[in-house]
Amino acid sequence: MLAADRPLTLVDEHARAWSPQTARTRFREGLTGPTAGVAAGHTQVNLISVPADWAYDMLLFCQRNPKPCPVLDVTDAGSWTTVLADGADLRTDLPRYRVWRDGELVDEPTDVRAHWRDDLVSFLIGCSFTFEWALAEAGVPIRHVEQGRNVPMYVTSRQCRPAGRLHGPMVVSMRPVPPEHVAAALRETGLLPAVHGSPVHCGDPSALGIADLGRPDFGDPVEAEPDDIPLFWACGVTPQAAVMASRPPFAITHAPGQMFLTDARDQQYRIA
Amino acid sequence: MLAADRPLTLVDEHARAWSPQTARTRFREGLTGPTAGVAAGHTQVNLISVPADWAYDMLLFCQRNPKPCPVLDVTDAGSWTTVLADGADLRTDLPRYRVWRDGELVDEPTDVRAHWRDDLVSFLIGCSFTFEWALAEAGVPIRHVEQGRNVPMYVTSRQCRPAGRLHGPMVVSMRPVPPEHVAAALRETGLLPAVHGSPVHCGDPSALGIADLGRPDFGDPVEAEPDDIPLFWACGVTPQAAVMASRPPFAITHAPGQMFLTDARDQQYRIA
Repeated sequence: MLAADRPLTLVDEHARAWSPQTARTRFREGLTGPTAGVAAGHTQVNLISVPADWAYDMLLFCQRNPKPCPVLDVTDAGSWTTVLADGADLRTDLPRYRVWRDGELVDEPTDVRAHWRDDLVSFLIGCSFTFEWALAEAGVPIRHVEQGRNVPMYVTSRQCRPAGRLHGPMVVSMRPVPPEHVAAALRETGLLPAVHGSPVHCGDPSALGIADLGRPDFGDPVEAEPDDIPLFWACGVTPQAAVMASRPPFAITHAPGQMFLTDARDQQYRIA
Repeated sequence: MLAADRPLTLVDEHARAWSPQTARTRFREGLTGPTAGVAAGHTQVNLISVPADWAYDMLLFCQRNPKPCPVLDVTDAGSWTTVLADGADLRTDLPRYRVWRDGELVDEPTDVRAHWRDDLVSFLIGCSFTFEWALAEAGVPIRHVEQGRNVPMYVTSRQCRPAGRLHGPMVVSMRPVPPEHVAAALRETGLLPAVHGSPVHCGDPSALGIADLGRPDFGDPVEAEPDDIPLFWACGVTPQAAVMASRPPFAITHAPGQMFLTDARDQQYRIA
């Protein structure tokens, strides 16, 4: 079953050329939508904010599962600023948020000032948008981009290493790669460990407990060419899966695909 | 001022060929001494154990300062086992420990079972012994090894990014590298971000507040050739400097140069 074509349109025709600061300002003013392609070349990150009482468990969960949860910054409790983005307000500068109570999604606002708590610790986690830049630069075709779709994501049968009260399955994203581009795809993403690094699995999806590539748990299905090899990368949606599985009393995350724009450049996270 | 030649002798003439398990058993039985060269090719790590009350600050300090403090594992409170070494006991399997109270060194035993507390959380942090393997493989001369000395280490004027109650200066190790080998040294260590990665500074030591390369704060001075360029890497002694500066009520660390032997292989931490 394939979704109808849904081209991923930029939130604004000029958004690709925006500075990250312009993007944050526009989102703060109320603009919403997917951030793929916005402020091209600048690093986008996943957001997850949890009460300070849960912050150690979350930080340890990330340390123990660095491929799905590469932490790029952690705020002090109650703070809505980050060293990754000058002048940003994490409560207002994302296009859309998700608010969770006891592991259940309760709201999807465009501003979380009304939900904010003085004890919230925010984790900014690397996003595969960064390594897609590197794949594109290396000439690796990215099928879901060619087809104007969101990347397909799957909850796997592989459990993350638990940390305190936090546990849950690893979520992966999948990109079908032509055989002649597999080596470049492994090399380029391997050089970007802060944004998930190299794939966690190549080939047979059943090894990850994925029954049907055509039915992703998040995002859109993507059409592969006959010889393509499916490559699976650990995905930044994993902490949201941990929230759903572990049910902390409260959490705020970004809405899928509507990431936080930092001032960092994608190339900064390249190891060599 | 140069120290007299003090060849770094192996604790046992066969130690290079030991398995990590054999090394841990021998140290558990009472053998002590520097671990450079022991169980060659296997990853050695820095140890720092702090009360659970300080564990979040320490983990956040490491996240905010990943070059000096690359975390390879964190134990659960009170546990003396680690996923990095099958059957190991962190209380007995290091050659020598340091015990700290309120930031002061109070004991240097070979076994810390008498000091152990049920609330201790242990951090295993990457060690430059791993990247020295990569430098040697790439043909980069390592002066302090040639001269049979410990690597020189310096407390710098560069402050780490603080985390909660933890703060302190960055400590660096220095290796003089011939100009024709600098590119390889940067490349090889850059591919090993889990063991400090690429240098934090090349050239003029005064930029780091180091007045005299001949007077290191830890380790031994090393003689450079006239054209050598001093390269400075972030060092795993940094958390001990943070303990000295921030004075948590209690901590246990390894003794400098007497590291914990894991079952992991150095090559596992190479990104590409």
